[in-house]
Amino acid sequence: MQESIKCSVWLASLVVSLCLQQAWVVAADPSHRVLRLPGQPPVRFKHYAGYVSVNEGKGRAIFYWFFEADHRKAGTLPVSFWFNGGPGCSSIGAGAMYELGPFFNANEAGKSGLVRNKHSWNKASNIVFVDSPVGVGYSYSNTSADYNYLDDELTAIDAMAFLVGWFTKFPQYQSNDVYLLGESYAGHYAPNLAKKILIHNEIPGKLRIKLKGFLIGNPWTDSYYDNKGAVDFWYHHSLISDETYNEIQKSCDYRQEPAVGFSSSAACRNAASHASNLEMAEIDAYNIYAGNCNSISVNDSAKNTKTRPSFFLALKDSNFCGPDTTTPYLNLPEVKAALHARPGINWTECSLQINSQYSVTSVVESMLPVYRYLLTRGLKMWIYSGDIDGVVPTTGTRYWLRELDLEVQVPWYPWNHSTQVGGWTQVYKGLTFVTVRDAGHMVPADKPSQALHVFRRFLAGKPLPGF
Amino acid sequence: MQESIKCSVWLASLVVSLCLQQAWVVAADPSHRVLRLPGQPPVRFKHYAGYVSVNEGKGRAIFYWFFEADHRKAGTLPVSFWFNGGPGCSSIGAGAMYELGPFFNANEAGKSGLVRNKHSWNKASNIVFVDSPVGVGYSYSNTSADYNYLDDELTAIDAMAFLVGWFTKFPQYQSNDVYLLGESYAGHYAPNLAKKILIHNEIPGKLRIKLKGFLIGNPWTDSYYDNKGAVDFWYHHSLISDETYNEIQKSCDYRQEPAVGFSSSAACRNAASHASNLEMAEIDAYNIYAGNCNSISVNDSAKNTKTRPSFFLALKDSNFCGPDTTTPYLNLPEVKAALHARPGINWTECSLQINSQYSVTSVVESMLPVYRYLLTRGLKMWIYSGDIDGVVPTTGTRYWLRELDLEVQVPWYPWNHSTQVGGWTQVYKGLTFVTVRDAGHMVPADKPSQALHVFRRFLAGKPLPGF
Repeated sequence: MQESIKCSVWLASLVVSLCLQQAWVVAADPSHRVLRLPGQPPVRFKHYAGYVSVNEGKGRAIFYWFFEADHRKAGTLPVSFWFNGGPGCSSIGAGAMYELGPFFNANEAGKSGLVRNKHSWNKASNIVFVDSPVGVGYSYSNTSADYNYLDDELTAIDAMAFLVGWFTKFPQYQSNDVYLLGESYAGHYAPNLAKKILIHNEIPGKLRIKLKGFLIGNPWTDSYYDNKGAVDFWYHHSLISDETYNEIQKSCDYRQEPAVGFSSSAACRNAASHASNLEMAEIDAYNIYAGNCNSISVNDSAKNTKTRPSFFLALKDSNFCGPDTTTPYLNLPEVKAALHARPGINWTECSLQINSQYSVTSVVESMLPVYRYLLTRGLKMWIYSGDIDGVVPTTGTRYWLRELDLEVQVPWYPWNHSTQVGGWTQVYKGLTFVTVRDAGHMVPADKPSQALHVFRRFLAGKPLPGF
Repeated sequence: MQESIKCSVWLASLVVSLCLQQAWVVAADPSHRVLRLPGQPPVRFKHYAGYVSVNEGKGRAIFYWFFEADHRKAGTLPVSFWFNGGPGCSSIGAGAMYELGPFFNANEAGKSGLVRNKHSWNKASNIVFVDSPVGVGYSYSNTSADYNYLDDELTAIDAMAFLVGWFTKFPQYQSNDVYLLGESYAGHYAPNLAKKILIHNEIPGKLRIKLKGFLIGNPWTDSYYDNKGAVDFWYHHSLISDETYNEIQKSCDYRQEPAVGFSSSAACRNAASHASNLEMAEIDAYNIYAGNCNSISVNDSAKNTKTRPSFFLALKDSNFCGPDTTTPYLNLPEVKAALHARPGINWTECSLQINSQYSVTSVVESMLPVYRYLLTRGLKMWIYSGDIDGVVPTTGTRYWLRELDLEVQVPWYPWNHSTQVGGWTQVYKGLTFVTVRDAGHMVPADKPSQALHVFRRFLAGKPLPGF
């Protein structure tokens, strides 16, 4: 039995090698092709969706939605994998349908179904949106106990298995460059998965993932610097009082807290709660200058009903007042059928269960040691940061970048986007930092043109243009 | 001769008293009535403009433009005097025609002449825009040497003489409540003039000015705190690099500098120049998220040609790309004739000569001792602050408020404007602080509805509404 499996693997690799040698493309899994997606406008590119099994024994499966690049040379462009954060939020609900995918759910009056996003990132790359870890979006485990043991290690193991499974399903992309993308808690997912891939690639006989780097936005990275940066940001943007600022600084242990005031002393919890539930309650912390539909004075019918239980959930309601139409859409039987999602699954944008069960030890673990490892391996690493995000603010990102103490190759300068400042950038040896001016936590949603510009420059490996 | 003057004064006061007792209103100076102002739309209220002599011997005259309140009870409403800063900028060009007056100069395509401002502050008060000190706007001195000795003391003396002269010209307002308004360097003008008025009012026989308080925005107050606050604001809004921030902090003497890097060490000048001329060069520091028409990549025809020589000049080009139409308008002979301005005078929005000659000793003098004096005198003092102003940022204002160490009467809370957060406010004993969210240096221009709301609440003496 063992022998026959090995043989099959050997035969499969042989077939793949032969195919590549003969420049003959193995068809993508035709059973995952998305056809008749309700309300979808016609497009030139194909898209696929469905599950990749990541653990047969436990019945764990990761859901993806893959869009071929909207480009005549799609086959030669990289394959990029997008991960939303939370932990617990769905990449297809936020990343694909609100931030950077080709189809947005129509939320505006007078429109229904899906509408095209003219700044979709699949104009520059093939893009796969991944619902990770299991329990998020359409992803699932048949072993319900799995949902109680989620941490960064399990997430990375499953994501690694997902990548191998995905490239097995789409073998014609095995020689393409690979990038990881994401935001928020993907600040953990991406570097951890990158490390996992590099180690995996060193094991002889494994399917090699041609990882070239990652691009992540407002990434949760180091609890000390991110929490300290958040509180300093709130104060210097005049969202909180002197009194609250001083009390938080005095009583909170930034290093041990998954967000300011969580799992901490009573004094810290009280001060942080005063900041969040009173002083900052009526603004959207994810974009401090956006209109806020959760405001208690917005009337109920116009209010966005999405929940936002903690700072770790990056939800999609900046600038958006109206009913949530994405959740009903992704729960339509015909949509699930078109996307090859389980018929009975209940799709939610962010899973409270996954968020609350996710290991706090993982959340407060610093990614700086992982960066130090990755910096020795020559990856292309770009960090971008919407500069009016109050959740994982630019200030905190700059604090941990300073801690990394990297050599500056191109000093801080404003980058140019359509005659105006798109943001600022600094090129370090091994890492490029980019801010996006006047953008919140969900940069591609807030500044779509700037975000696509950053993505293109990242792919090209070229610093952003100055003035 | 002396006797006859005294007698005239006595007779004049008698007439005024009699008039007031009989509720008979003395006509405003009819020779200053503004009629046939080119391009002016019809309005219900009257307006007046012209000079008030403040020093006969030297030939110094202050220009004003007075708008009756647009209100059926105009005569009973307060009289408020608005002062733009600089020093050197014209209240009629900025305050009246761009920020809070009833007529704006039409800058939009397809419009010409004047347009109504539906959020004009004369809906709540009679408003007098004052070109102060001499040399600013239409104001002048016949003794050219006067322009070389400008400082806070002379400015306050002339402004005091102006007020007395103005109330002599418009005696029917002598019993109305009086407020001082302004922004930027009016942070010096208003408290200094308030103190001058209170002292003046104690001298028997003088025309009493019924000063009730002042409302000033993004006020330059204390060079140490305002400069330190500016640099901290730039850093925490990610406008400047870590390296520049550290170098400025190390090498600049905030207390002695009229703006960061002016009149200081070479190291400080270099670091501040790097911040201003490179890192922040392409944004509008007066509103860090506004489009900037001075950007070098904006083509020349669309570029705003106004100069901006220093941080002390508050110019009116936030969000405005197009030719400057106010300067040509206010230099039209027929406009000068309608406003009773000197025919030969060259109106400029901000006078470089006045700005450069203004005493640096005055500019770096702290207003905190003046506040401490005023706090004993029961004035209604409100400070507002647009929170995305990079010139006199909210951060600096909060630093000097903390130094004043006032008793907190109503702790920091978000105030409610049309279902959204208008900003935050904290009520201290004797002083109310208000931020205006997403507004730059020129708050009434950036957030007209919010600004009028703040002005109304200030007049009513009522804290802003919470949620």
